[in-house]
Amino acid sequence: MASIFTKIINREIPGHIVAEDAQHIAILDINPNAKGHTLCIPKKEVNKIFDLPEEDYMALMAFSRKVALALEQVVTCERIGVSVIGLEVPHVHVHLIPLTTMEDARFINKTKLDQEEFKALAQQINEAL
Amino acid sequence: MASIFTKIINREIPGHIVAEDAQHIAILDINPNAKGHTLCIPKKEVNKIFDLPEEDYMALMAFSRKVALALEQVVTCERIGVSVIGLEVPHVHVHLIPLTTMEDARFINKTKLDQEEFKALAQQINEAL
Repeated sequence: MASIFTKIINREIPGHIVAEDAQHIAILDINPNAKGHTLCIPKKEVNKIFDLPEEDYMALMAFSRKVALALEQVVTCERIGVSVIGLEVPHVHVHLIPLTTMEDARFINKTKLDQEEFKALAQQINEAL
Repeated sequence: MASIFTKIINREIPGHIVAEDAQHIAILDINPNAKGHTLCIPKKEVNKIFDLPEEDYMALMAFSRKVALALEQVVTCERIGVSVIGLEVPHVHVHLIPLTTMEDARFINKTKLDQEEFKALAQQINEAL
């Protein structure tokens, strides 16, 4: 079955798209640790990051860096953190998380944004790319 | 002042070294989230990962992938997770964390190993490279 991310990539379900190229998409996490929490996802549906061929892994990391540099311009934080876990959705995704305190990196405290805020934020990050 | 990682790189203080090349070192985290928790560190002392020049960032990511693939052969886990935070030591380091449950990714539950266990583990991972 297609992952939730593949469904967003295929426009079967909506997502707040921040960036997209031929191989990747970046979307806002809808249950963010902090405002601006973004997921960078290869379009090819692979479960584990280190199972990606080296070339695909390196392309994902280069894409994630571009998105992080844009994110950094838009959100207020101490730094952009990176996290790859994948125990919940078996489709590789790189979390980019604007960090202010260590709590922002733990996936316990969550932030609420409404649909208009998500939409405006995705557009702002996209424009900073 | 030199970071704790620079001191390990310069052999001023001891570390359980897993891998090393001209630009990077990988050491076991001495306060691991899970057995095998490893830090991949560029020798150049830069605070934030996205402040690294693109070439240095990509080299660090390639080095981290090699170490992760070796780690995966040695430790028992569901998958190798990645985390870059950096709020505590201002010298870029990529955490590679053997994950079994989400708790292993939160930096709250810690695992104890004695010096002999650290030493044997570093050697095993090095041999799997």
